[in-house]
Amino acid sequence: MANILDDLPPRAALAEIARDFHARGWMAGTAGNLSARADDEHFWITASGKPKGRLDELDFLLVRVKDGEVVERVRPENKPSAETAIHRVLYARFPEARACLHGHIVEAALVAERAKKDATGLRLPAIEMIKGFDIWQQNPKVDLPLFANHLDVAKIAADIDKRFKKSKPAVTALMVRAHGPTVWGASLQDAYNRFEILEYLLRYLAQARARRG
Amino acid sequence: MANILDDLPPRAALAEIARDFHARGWMAGTAGNLSARADDEHFWITASGKPKGRLDELDFLLVRVKDGEVVERVRPENKPSAETAIHRVLYARFPEARACLHGHIVEAALVAERAKKDATGLRLPAIEMIKGFDIWQQNPKVDLPLFANHLDVAKIAADIDKRFKKSKPAVTALMVRAHGPTVWGASLQDAYNRFEILEYLLRYLAQARARRG
Amino acid sequence: MANILDDLPPRAALAEIARDFHARGWMAGTAGNLSARADDEHFWITASGKPKGRLDELDFLLVRVKDGEVVERVRPENKPSAETAIHRVLYARFPEARACLHGHIVEAALVAERAKKDATGLRLPAIEMIKGFDIWQQNPKVDLPLFANHLDVAKIAADIDKRFKKSKPAVTALMVRAHGPTVWGASLQDAYNRFEILEYLLRYLAQARARRG
Amino acid sequence: MANILDDLPPRAALAEIARDFHARGWMAGTAGNLSARADDEHFWITASGKPKGRLDELDFLLVRVKDGEVVERVRPENKPSAETAIHRVLYARFPEARACLHGHIVEAALVAERAKKDATGLRLPAIEMIKGFDIWQQNPKVDLPLFANHLDVAKIAADIDKRFKKSKPAVTALMVRAHGPTVWGASLQDAYNRFEILEYLLRYLAQARARRG
Repeated sequence: MANILDDLPPRAALAEIARDFHARGWMAGTAGNLSARADDEHFWITASGKPKGRLDELDFLLVRVKDGEVVERVRPENKPSAETAIHRVLYARFPEARACLHGHIVEAALVAERAKKDATGLRLPAIEMIKGFDIWQQNPKVDLPLFANHLDVAKIAADIDKRFKKSKPAVTALMVRAHGPTVWGASLQDAYNRFEILEYLLRYLAQARARRG
Repeated sequence: MANILDDLPPRAALAEIARDFHARGWMAGTAGNLSARADDEHFWITASGKPKGRLDELDFLLVRVKDGEVVERVRPENKPSAETAIHRVLYARFPEARACLHGHIVEAALVAERAKKDATGLRLPAIEMIKGFDIWQQNPKVDLPLFANHLDVAKIAADIDKRFKKSKPAVTALMVRAHGPTVWGASLQDAYNRFEILEYLLRYLAQARARRG
Repeated sequence: MANILDDLPPRAALAEIARDFHARGWMAGTAGNLSARADDEHFWITASGKPKGRLDELDFLLVRVKDGEVVERVRPENKPSAETAIHRVLYARFPEARACLHGHIVEAALVAERAKKDATGLRLPAIEMIKGFDIWQQNPKVDLPLFANHLDVAKIAADIDKRFKKSKPAVTALMVRAHGPTVWGASLQDAYNRFEILEYLLRYLAQARARRG
Repeated sequence: MANILDDLPPRAALAEIARDFHARGWMAGTAGNLSARADDEHFWITASGKPKGRLDELDFLLVRVKDGEVVERVRPENKPSAETAIHRVLYARFPEARACLHGHIVEAALVAERAKKDATGLRLPAIEMIKGFDIWQQNPKVDLPLFANHLDVAKIAADIDKRFKKSKPAVTALMVRAHGPTVWGASLQDAYNRFEILEYLLRYLAQARARRG
């Protein structure tokens, strides 16, 4: 086993993360999408409609950040994930982001459902685990950015871009209501770690039956 | 590993799904049954009474859709699943169905238990995951067909046939109260994906403590 | 892989079940004990104090049903499980029992805790899964025998013997309050299947927040 | 497989425990830290900031109990866990402790959150499983020591030292609020067993919605 995910080629690491997240129930069916920067201007992203427990390295496409053009695809029939626009916004907005992971978690959807209709953030619990987002305060008041879900993914992406243009979020993560979290990090391993951290925090919230927003 | 389940011979794929579902607690003991079409007129189905975590390719029987006759069995003592009649109804009613998976899920049984006594459907949550059933609407109102359980499986099968003759369900799935979901799909992988999707939706409902029906 | 557990030598099967149950959280630490008949008059049982995820075939002792004498032990320091007396009662009382599995399940302990103080049974839910105990009725009213826990295991064993002498239980299983279920079966595979079934039924009860007794 | 964890070299055993705990969700991201005595005066502890599912034997540092000096490190960039001070206090206070395991468990944090603000202990449930802490009483009244969380780990360590100097805890374990449990044992296997036991007891409490303190 590679010692950490960053020791693997990006597509191999993404396929391994997909198997892992699928086994934990965070990528049911063909849900979710994962990406990693190949270089400053391009990223590898999962092809659309593939069962995430069974990806291989051919199930990724190379996409250009600035215009979404597909620069490389091994299987001609593959299309990039329907949510590629969200990944593009995050890579364009945050140059330090090297990987971006999106899954579906029942507890996350439930916690978001309980938030007020006009809430733009979910207050994360002030527990030790939040240090995993590099927050080193005694009683941190940190909100996970919360966005409305739309059938038109471009609209979600535009909302995210507009909000983050105004102010950088407190955590390298966001939540789309009735949908799921997206987490980014400075490396594949870092994004993977933070996804686990966020899942932990949201599971805590779901069980605590907090009704914040 | 085969890239997707459809790359495997049908019985090998079914045995793999059975191990997978058993490990997740959806086929406790010898519960549940799985099938896949061999051709338009026949399907392979699990033998009755076998522990689902330990099937091999000899634990399946070839059954004729139109009359339920067992056309092939390797182990002479094997009998087809007690619920073969339900699979027959689904294959006869839906020519596009190529695989049919039935398991038992605690959350599914609980959600059904909470539905009104005369409810004929369970309203599924209008969350992103429902797209896994090819439902592309902003706020979909989709019901999972709900049926009463009977000791006499033929009666359940007849109820299903009667209802679906009148109208095709909104999802390729149904739920029998106090029992479990059955999901079908256009291929083995498709049925597997949809089973995961339905489990996710029902787990969401169970935790949301929705009392619809 | 052996096709079913009964194809393995009894101690190998028990070690495999112990790893399986431990991985599912039903044998935390060194909790629980498992046995299988070697012949009509003797059974193999787990040694006391061993971590159940790491047993090998030397971690079992051969015990005589009628008087509890240890007939064979490979590691001289091994002692039979502290709850051997319960296994002896069950093998003596039920000649058809060939294996006997005892674990600890949080949901089982919680459901028992909610029962009335003087309840002698837990009403199992009348769901399809109960057929796994060979109960083929439309709305079965079946009670899982419930016993008080005592520090002195001999007292628990005597209570079980006394109760079952009067009347055979409706299921091949029992529950000791604040402790855990014990399940027996006509073979190792049968006992394993039934343990899974009972766990499913008790998990259903725990989530349904039923307060029967 | 080694028969028990104590048959492995300490760092190999700790890496295996870390993979195991990570897979169960008790070491999300890089959370948690594990140690084992090398001799009376030194212990191996996990390096800071490593993903716990992917440790190898080079990811440990040898630390002196009395002053925290790092005596050996293979990777020069490695720093000992930020919570090394807590391990030092425990090894200094309890000569019989040979291993010390700290993880994060959602249920543990929730149960602690429900305790009264000035509670110094969590009453553990009087169920059979508590025997795993060598408590052999009919209705034991046992408290898990509860400590406040501080950004400054040295302050947590000092609180623990001060309390345990006055009186030895009833169990070889403690809980830091909003953080997680630390468990020690007379060997690596013993500490591992006890961590599982404590998780079971806290999960029971979380589900029982007890509000003790």
